[in-house]
Amino acid sequence: MFQNFSDTDQRHLTPARIADLRDRLEALGIDGLVVPRADEFQGEYVPACAERLNWLTGFSGSAGSAVLLKSAAAIFVDGRYTLQVREQVDLDLITPLQVPDESPHDWVSQNLPEGGKLGFDPWLLTIQDAKRYDAACREAGAELVALDSNPIDAVWQDRPAAPANPVVQQPLQFAGVSGEDKLRAIAEGLRERDAAACVLTQTDAVAWVFNIRGSDIPHTPAVLAFTIVHDDASADLFLDASRIDEDARDALSQANVRLSPPEKMTEVLQALGAATANVELDFPWAAEALRRTLTASGATVTHHESPCTLPRATKNRAELEGARAAHLRDGVPMAQFLRWLDVNAPAGKLDEISAAKKLEALRAQTGELCDLSFDTISGAGPHAAIPHYRVSETSNLPIEKDRIYLVDSGAQYVDGTTDITRTIIAGTPTPEMKDRFTRVLRGMINLSRARFPAGTTGGHLDPVARAPLWEAGLDFDHGTGHGVGSYLSVHEGPQRFSKTDRTVLQPGMILSNEPGYYKAGEYGIRIENLLVVREAETIEGGERPMHWFETLTFTPIDRNLVEPAIMSDAELDWLDDYHAQVLKNVTPRLESEQDQAWLQAACAPITR
Amino acid sequence: MFQNFSDTDQRHLTPARIADLRDRLEALGIDGLVVPRADEFQGEYVPACAERLNWLTGFSGSAGSAVLLKSAAAIFVDGRYTLQVREQVDLDLITPLQVPDESPHDWVSQNLPEGGKLGFDPWLLTIQDAKRYDAACREAGAELVALDSNPIDAVWQDRPAAPANPVVQQPLQFAGVSGEDKLRAIAEGLRERDAAACVLTQTDAVAWVFNIRGSDIPHTPAVLAFTIVHDDASADLFLDASRIDEDARDALSQANVRLSPPEKMTEVLQALGAATANVELDFPWAAEALRRTLTASGATVTHHESPCTLPRATKNRAELEGARAAHLRDGVPMAQFLRWLDVNAPAGKLDEISAAKKLEALRAQTGELCDLSFDTISGAGPHAAIPHYRVSETSNLPIEKDRIYLVDSGAQYVDGTTDITRTIIAGTPTPEMKDRFTRVLRGMINLSRARFPAGTTGGHLDPVARAPLWEAGLDFDHGTGHGVGSYLSVHEGPQRFSKTDRTVLQPGMILSNEPGYYKAGEYGIRIENLLVVREAETIEGGERPMHWFETLTFTPIDRNLVEPAIMSDAELDWLDDYHAQVLKNVTPRLESEQDQAWLQAACAPITR
Repeated sequence: MFQNFSDTDQRHLTPARIADLRDRLEALGIDGLVVPRADEFQGEYVPACAERLNWLTGFSGSAGSAVLLKSAAAIFVDGRYTLQVREQVDLDLITPLQVPDESPHDWVSQNLPEGGKLGFDPWLLTIQDAKRYDAACREAGAELVALDSNPIDAVWQDRPAAPANPVVQQPLQFAGVSGEDKLRAIAEGLRERDAAACVLTQTDAVAWVFNIRGSDIPHTPAVLAFTIVHDDASADLFLDASRIDEDARDALSQANVRLSPPEKMTEVLQALGAATANVELDFPWAAEALRRTLTASGATVTHHESPCTLPRATKNRAELEGARAAHLRDGVPMAQFLRWLDVNAPAGKLDEISAAKKLEALRAQTGELCDLSFDTISGAGPHAAIPHYRVSETSNLPIEKDRIYLVDSGAQYVDGTTDITRTIIAGTPTPEMKDRFTRVLRGMINLSRARFPAGTTGGHLDPVARAPLWEAGLDFDHGTGHGVGSYLSVHEGPQRFSKTDRTVLQPGMILSNEPGYYKAGEYGIRIENLLVVREAETIEGGERPMHWFETLTFTPIDRNLVEPAIMSDAELDWLDDYHAQVLKNVTPRLESEQDQAWLQAACAPITR
Repeated sequence: MFQNFSDTDQRHLTPARIADLRDRLEALGIDGLVVPRADEFQGEYVPACAERLNWLTGFSGSAGSAVLLKSAAAIFVDGRYTLQVREQVDLDLITPLQVPDESPHDWVSQNLPEGGKLGFDPWLLTIQDAKRYDAACREAGAELVALDSNPIDAVWQDRPAAPANPVVQQPLQFAGVSGEDKLRAIAEGLRERDAAACVLTQTDAVAWVFNIRGSDIPHTPAVLAFTIVHDDASADLFLDASRIDEDARDALSQANVRLSPPEKMTEVLQALGAATANVELDFPWAAEALRRTLTASGATVTHHESPCTLPRATKNRAELEGARAAHLRDGVPMAQFLRWLDVNAPAGKLDEISAAKKLEALRAQTGELCDLSFDTISGAGPHAAIPHYRVSETSNLPIEKDRIYLVDSGAQYVDGTTDITRTIIAGTPTPEMKDRFTRVLRGMINLSRARFPAGTTGGHLDPVARAPLWEAGLDFDHGTGHGVGSYLSVHEGPQRFSKTDRTVLQPGMILSNEPGYYKAGEYGIRIENLLVVREAETIEGGERPMHWFETLTFTPIDRNLVEPAIMSDAELDWLDDYHAQVLKNVTPRLESEQDQAWLQAACAPITR
């Protein structure tokens, strides 16, 4: 649920913690430690007990890593967190550096003394990343040392316990395909590739394959557990049986899944090794510790993309029906919220926190909200210019008249995950704001209405959403969109819209379409709908089937910010048609006549 | 110069030639032979003496390969040549197969008998390709055998002699940078990479690096010679000194270039081997024979992209000035030709050959034509639907009223290479023709007017030229554009507009922009201008510098085929502005008042 309005300022704790950790490293005879923001599953969200980077440095962003040496320390974050990291870490002790311009590997190769030993927890680095650190250490004439246990855990007082919330069954009505069938398909692939087994390490893959959901981490109902799938379509799931509800336990046993406590996994890996089995791991995602355990016991380890990735990304009919239902449902609180803002914002009494709370309360009123799908980004004025802004008690700004307000939020419903951004203004925008908003909107529209042949990738289409900004010498510094799960992670691969993407868009993939524009210190704009890639259809009069996008999101776009003079007829037609669909789909679900009237006005055709 | 109107039908010769070759292979104790359409330089054009694929099979296309086994033979061509190959080869003896769906490597692995030996000429396969055939043979439990000489040459009676035309100096005024300076830059790169030398194997790279031009192959003034550049900025050029004109010889000697006859190269390679030197080859382009000779004599061979590729592609100021002058010059015969068509086509007396000859004659009238840059594609009606159509005496169609005529042609001038396609109609187009033409034109326009940030690739922009077709369920099956040389090859890498391209577009690169639409058996459309990538400029009111394209080509686009109703205002503005530029640039160069008057009408603004 929505929480974490405030991050505690932990800077004052850093010196003692770093000193304690350095003592510990000294005792272990090593010269440094890699501290990634990761747990053993390498997911985007980690439980509190794995927030070692935050504990050590105070940095609370969702991605980053630090390297602590005897007399130097650096923290590496991406462009989203450049400002935040400088506010959160003790700059006397830790140097913030920005990836990809600076990489921890390069820094290690330049700063680790020759003959030094850099320690790392092999559960917290992927196979791919461990290889990079290893190369960096070699370049420095030093050594990368895998540690048996994490030295931070030894000095972290009051470290939270690992979460152990209940795991429940995801009904087949929403999952569409049984765990048994999914295992059979995976086993078939293993046999084709002469592999005896694969280890599923991504928590949403484990949840997907067995149709189970957990609540160990906020916002993502994944299950923090490892699974080994064997070529006979049986599987080992390493999870305490007592945590699993009866329905789920029955389904697992029917699907030939052996339940074992997590500490038994090493034995099963070693048994695969003893049988000199060929075992598949997804190297960019799997913990180095798995590779080491398997290899040491005699197994052959091969890289192969997780066999869950593509079937999980290409939603089946039940999942798509669920996504449609979830988005129609979510259209109601979104409409109510936008009206509430429209009515109350001009008085100047609202602020970023109260708005986010209101939106969450309206979503809860649907009676079906399981969780938010991420911490709501509720940004007024200059805060809207920070793409991953997270409001805190100290940062909380009022929502003022004539200033832009951006809200990026989403819900977890049992039938689907939503993610939507709207940018609105209470009052009058400047001509520049309207120009920028309209360019962002045109990019969003043109991507939504794209037709494209089989074989097209998200990388091919990413520029479509940027072209109207490029025309004016503008751009934005994040991808145009990411994959979205089915009552799972709001960020799900492999598909995305980004310059470097090479994943072919396939029917059933859900993606966000969220171009933006950010003017630092003044305002920011982002407009986001979710899209589904739809199977190729022949266009009337056309010769070749084309894929297209179905829009899932039904929420009005602020007409106050639209400048029709710089839109083409086709773009304006799309917008009017979209608003007509919002009106048609959402009106019958609104109980209040005031809400209905507001929606009608918000969805009126644009005057050309 | 324009020639080769007719390919001789050679089908009747194939049985005897195949039988002779099979006898020869039997005598050599091998079970088959790889017959690529290649010479030792792996260029697009090969001299007559290297047309072994054509000699053996009768296939005259510009790309393809055959594999001849004892009792089976297959020829592999791409989609351009699917029809042509079936017309040219003896289908009883040779099976035509289409790449990439079918590959010669897969065919070898399936058809070569276990224990068999597949021969190949190591001068005719690249290192990369030899590796693929080697893997295919291993898969079949067979062996790939490098042959000392080509068995075809032993049975080919009256094989033409290797060409030995004069080699001349390309004046610095057009080349912009001296050979000496180019060698210095390459040597610096070699030293940075700890390489002692590199072998330049691409004929246009050799021409580029020394500022020399040849005439051994039609249409491309490249020089058929190998060069070794050493880390001290000296070079070996393997070319008979007697063929080189005095100016060029002086410049070569000033640049510290040692001239040796071609047969001396092995000695120099072996000397590098004796010194256990690290030598760079560009594996996808270099003959396997080079790798074998170097490795056998003790050298270490490393893959590195040819150090000429990027500097050759990013034209310097002199080359760009030359390109502009060449295109302005070429605008005159193009305008004269289009008027000539306009006046004469309705009478129905013109045909594909007479039109191509007329265009060449008009280009020759400039007094500056060195050669055509490729065989003119002159296609009337259904022939316009064949993207790489080459007219012959037997295929020659009249240019008729109310039918589309497509002409894709180019010139080699000493200051630049041109390549232009126009599609016109004498008479009245159907509404479908206008719709298709306008969609192709919109794609061409939108790519021409694109603004894009540094880092954008041709792959990112390729869809821009297709989107108007995709909207209507249409597409075309070739890349949107290719790089173009400076008085060199009309097809030059590494930049291109295509789905699979990943080359960052850099200032100075010249590319063609040539979307199309082809309705088999009826008509075809292609519109092609050449573009130069221009350095990033700040757009007024913009925040980020954007690259843009300068259009080089100045020739009207047939207004009869434009349907303004499906064009945006921005697209129409571009077209009117383009025509205004054509009028302004070309009118002063036209001597005839009739031509001037025609051009004025052809460039009139579109009625909206």
